[in-house]
Amino acid sequence: MKRKSANSLAPGFRFHPTDEELVRYYLKRKVSGKPLRFDSISEIDIYKSEPWDLPDKSRLRTRDLEWYFFSPLDKKYGNGSKTNRATEEGYWKTTGKDRSVRNGSRIVGMKKTLVYHCGRAPRGQRTNWVMHEYRLIDEELEKAGIPQVRT
Amino acid sequence: MKRKSANSLAPGFRFHPTDEELVRYYLKRKVSGKPLRFDSISEIDIYKSEPWDLPDKSRLRTRDLEWYFFSPLDKKYGNGSKTNRATEEGYWKTTGKDRSVRNGSRIVGMKKTLVYHCGRAPRGQRTNWVMHEYRLIDEELEKAGIPQVRT
Repeated sequence: MKRKSANSLAPGFRFHPTDEELVRYYLKRKVSGKPLRFDSISEIDIYKSEPWDLPDKSRLRTRDLEWYFFSPLDKKYGNGSKTNRATEEGYWKTTGKDRSVRNGSRIVGMKKTLVYHCGRAPRGQRTNWVMHEYRLIDEELEKAGIPQVRT
Repeated sequence: MKRKSANSLAPGFRFHPTDEELVRYYLKRKVSGKPLRFDSISEIDIYKSEPWDLPDKSRLRTRDLEWYFFSPLDKKYGNGSKTNRATEEGYWKTTGKDRSVRNGSRIVGMKKTLVYHCGRAPRGQRTNWVMHEYRLIDEELEKAGIPQVRT
């Protein structure tokens, strides 16, 4: 079964950005309102969907089981630093420590890994849906997020 | 140092065709004169260049150390099956056995690996330049080659 659309890639072409490309090109340009050479990442509210509904919302049709989105971060409590990562049927739970994304020796971003759990914390059921959330570390351009969902 | 041209890919995009895509899409369409969705592979005579001159002849500017070309096969002796793989300063020498390229259980092509040697056989000096040559196995469409040079 093949789906052909304007945004499917020609055979042999892949969208496999490095962490650095995601942060320093896609996320930085998005946050600063600069145009992207190829508009390959849709902007959605990731927490308004369950993970299995996300592939259809991806702008790029790929044969890989990876999809990329821009998404705003929803703060749970007014000025607090805790973010609300619940969806209607489950929630995304942080796993491990955030890792840094580097350009040479300079840290340009951070990468957080989250796992989707069905149900409500703390009794949710772990699934195989994994999201990598990238945020920009930059004096002018803080507090922006680009999640990448992967299963 | 960055080189931007019409044929450089946007950040995050790669040209990483599988063996099957190379044979069943690129080579087959080329041989049968059908148009390619994205004209990413130049046609050159690979044996008229030394390997280090090939990257500049690639249509696609990538950050990978891999380049793709269509090239005719030059038969050494009239109807013989031996092909002439000498360049001006060296020659490409077959290494290992040809491997099959499959679509499911069906063999659709063969892949030959060659290593560039400086000088003249049998005293040439082995280098790190490697070429994968793909040919089509198909009742109607035999005897066509698509080499892929890699270092």
